Amino acid sequence: MVTLQQIAPQEIEAESFRIIERELGPTAFSPEEFAVVRRTIHATGDFSFAENLRFHPQAVTTGLAAIRAGKNILVDVNMAASGISAALLTRFGGRVICRVAEADTVAMAKQNGTTRSDAAMARSIADNIGIVAIGNAPTALLKVMELIEQGLFAPNLVIGVPVGFVNASESKELLAQKNYPFITALGRKGGTPVAVAAVNALLRLA
Amino acid sequence: MVTLQQIAPQEIEAESFRIIERELGPTAFSPEEFAVVRRTIHATGDFSFAENLRFHPQAVTTGLAAIRAGKNILVDVNMAASGISAALLTRFGGRVICRVAEADTVAMAKQNGTTRSDAAMARSIADNIGIVAIGNAPTALLKVMELIEQGLFAPNLVIGVPVGFVNASESKELLAQKNYPFITALGRKGGTPVAVAAVNALLRLA
Repeated sequence: MVTLQQIAPQEIEAESFRIIERELGPTAFSPEEFAVVRRTIHATGDFSFAENLRFHPQAVTTGLAAIRAGKNILVDVNMAASGISAALLTRFGGRVICRVAEADTVAMAKQNGTTRSDAAMARSIADNIGIVAIGNAPTALLKVMELIEQGLFAPNLVIGVPVGFVNASESKELLAQKNYPFITALGRKGGTPVAVAAVNALLRLA
Repeated sequence: MVTLQQIAPQEIEAESFRIIERELGPTAFSPEEFAVVRRTIHATGDFSFAENLRFHPQAVTTGLAAIRAGKNILVDVNMAASGISAALLTRFGGRVICRVAEADTVAMAKQNGTTRSDAAMARSIADNIGIVAIGNAPTALLKVMELIEQGLFAPNLVIGVPVGFVNASESKELLAQKNYPFITALGRKGGTPVAVAAVNALLRLA
């Protein structure tokens, strides 16, 4: 016998957050970091993110400053672009940029023997990027770290949470060692919903 | 010290599938069901889906028949529409339909005091739907089951894998008891990447 919870549509998110807080108990995250953690668990149904998420100490502060300055958000896949709250972002003047499916990206990847995700990052360094949010492609995250190291790209915050089995956990372990602002999730888990949850949590905080 | 795997872009998916198969070992799924399971684990980095996924015995057969007949795929959120391989689907003549953000859906939800996800399903029953794929909204899945029960809607396959804390696991437990074709994932986990992975696995099998 399955019993459904009777609840008004506008109450579902708040009730979900209450359940998460109750089951999770106290954590070591700052209140702003916890907003990201809570929304990630809400998006995945997976409490392991409370253990795997890592924040650079300035991650939230610099992310919020970038949003408020009207800077753009660079994502690796179009699914992420669909998930980020455009209504909130445009209020600050920013927009979501995703170049992975553009013809010039496809051509560059073919020419250089890289993934399209790699080429899409290289083609976006002059796009006034405040936050990079990568939930899918380890090669995109590796390229962003390389471009930053080379002094060619300077986003305010790198949200790097690619999911998968080939270089995903490795790329995130590298990101977690950086001295510039990042949010990451150690291990194989992650994904576009995690990247989107982090961005949307920051948009609400801003 | 982090060591990256050197691998050609076009080999990443195949190598990921090999890792999944090696770590998972033998399963009780049919080869076609396993294609769905494997792609779901690939999309989430989460092996628990090998335990949580449930298939009606005719799920894969009817899903493939619907795709080959050129029928459309109904999804609950635009993120899912972005993730489903349009290149593969259009080859068969179908398209992805998502009405959740349409003005008439918003108006209907407001008038009836339901979620937009609920209203979007009600507005799509005459859209030649072969597969319904719900990864986000339990209310969308509950509405689809209600419409089928009432004889108002007859999709060939219901992929119902909403994620979350309010009625998500309950809605999936209900779906798992149905005598019409379904794919579901018991428990709180699920999400748009799971729904998309299931659809894309079927598109590749077709």
